[in-house]
Amino acid sequence: MSGPRIERLAIAGVGLIGGSLALAAREAGLVGEVVGWGRTAANLETARARGIVDRVAATPADAVAGADVVVLAAPVRACAPLAEAFRPHAKRGALLTDVGSVKGELVAALEPAWASVGPFVGAHPIAGSEASGAAAARADLFRHTRCIVTPTPATDGDALRRVRVLWEAVGATVVVMTPAMHDGILARVSHMPHLVAYALAAAVGGATVEGAPVLPYAGPGFRDTTRIAGSPAELWRDIMLANADALGAALREFRAELDRLAVLIESGDGAALGAALDAARELRRKLGSE
Amino acid sequence: MSGPRIERLAIAGVGLIGGSLALAAREAGLVGEVVGWGRTAANLETARARGIVDRVAATPADAVAGADVVVLAAPVRACAPLAEAFRPHAKRGALLTDVGSVKGELVAALEPAWASVGPFVGAHPIAGSEASGAAAARADLFRHTRCIVTPTPATDGDALRRVRVLWEAVGATVVVMTPAMHDGILARVSHMPHLVAYALAAAVGGATVEGAPVLPYAGPGFRDTTRIAGSPAELWRDIMLANADALGAALREFRAELDRLAVLIESGDGAALGAALDAARELRRKLGSE
Repeated sequence: MSGPRIERLAIAGVGLIGGSLALAAREAGLVGEVVGWGRTAANLETARARGIVDRVAATPADAVAGADVVVLAAPVRACAPLAEAFRPHAKRGALLTDVGSVKGELVAALEPAWASVGPFVGAHPIAGSEASGAAAARADLFRHTRCIVTPTPATDGDALRRVRVLWEAVGATVVVMTPAMHDGILARVSHMPHLVAYALAAAVGGATVEGAPVLPYAGPGFRDTTRIAGSPAELWRDIMLANADALGAALREFRAELDRLAVLIESGDGAALGAALDAARELRRKLGSE
Repeated sequence: MSGPRIERLAIAGVGLIGGSLALAAREAGLVGEVVGWGRTAANLETARARGIVDRVAATPADAVAGADVVVLAAPVRACAPLAEAFRPHAKRGALLTDVGSVKGELVAALEPAWASVGPFVGAHPIAGSEASGAAAARADLFRHTRCIVTPTPATDGDALRRVRVLWEAVGATVVVMTPAMHDGILARVSHMPHLVAYALAAAVGGATVEGAPVLPYAGPGFRDTTRIAGSPAELWRDIMLANADALGAALREFRAELDRLAVLIESGDGAALGAALDAARELRRKLGSE
């Protein structure tokens, strides 16, 4: 591929991210045919009916035959087995990329696994929601978002450029960094907050006071705070396990803040507590409300 | 007052809750004149300009003179001093109520403080957002919400009925329970989640990885999870201090869940982690997405 056009794009895992990428790439006039591959027949049928994919592959060989670009958009720990299944059938020189939320483990596995076929470039679009599946895919999902691309010293320069062009074409701003830096950042802004939201949903969802369940008294604040605990458990299980070290570090930082606030409450130090909450509020306000 | 009409309503603290109650009560045809009292001249002027209050009182005496009902809608720990300031000037028999998010400490202080004037009934509408001030007030804030009313054995039955009528008239479903039960429930669905959100905002808002601030990489999930950390620090400082015991218990429950998940991640137990996340997700899904 000399220009940005992809004659045949294979998407393995036609969910929210994979499906949205296919829709957006097509809308951008970047792709010819899109071939879908996945585990769930009903989801693939939704993807076909919505025009996200032109056809659904019946076998791994059929999925990647003749594809210029293969995108792995499955749960993090399903990606390496998929690459293994595709490798014998891929076109020589085919570019492999992924959208996984953890990069260190995945890049270390996929780069050597694909080396006999063609280049590999890891990527992670920072988009998505607790919604999932092809039904939730939309062409504008990546507009005004960032996509982190994580080359290694071995990454092919032309392949890196092609992946950048793809993500810029669908509306993302591309940021390049190492897999380790990506994983450290995402542990803090995403993986640890997801863990906290799941723990909140579990603790409050099952709690009772004087025999009465507390959940019916939850207001919009609790709903917001735990919204991401509605995300698919399988995806997040894989992410948390694959980024366990950085997640552990982020969790220690969170616990230190929580402990600091808890001590101020227990000691009744209103001045210091007010100042600490106000400082946290100022940091939050940098993000804006939408 | 024999019927539901309130000839003169005094609102002390014309913010999101106090201002919305005034707007909604007026829209329901329940009130004659609304008199506002507060600390911040600019906010009171906004309240007057928006028609939330008919006039702004210049002194505590002016605020409650001739009022049938006095609503304390100030931060939790400002309420008892306000009741003290109003008491000498209140009309004999005037009903005092409040909207505080903590009931035990407040009811214990306000009930005896007001006994020489008239009845007191504690209430807490479960509504609101991180927005604040008279500018954010709206007449529909309490529709489809719950208002918890917390009588004691000493509470006057007619006064309880009047407070119930007021909250039902503005669209809330009234639930009656003890102050202690209220505080146990709210610690879990609201106060502890706020503390967690502030701690998350503080931990992530100040974090760097390889020298780079992580906050610019936060996506919509982090935004949702920390939205309530944009709430006014002074309000939440007071709530946390006034409900420290129940908040401490709720925090222990949350930490136990977080520790349980962290152990599963550290030990790499994918099956148990997946099951735990899925169970948390099911609890969260009971709430719906909006």
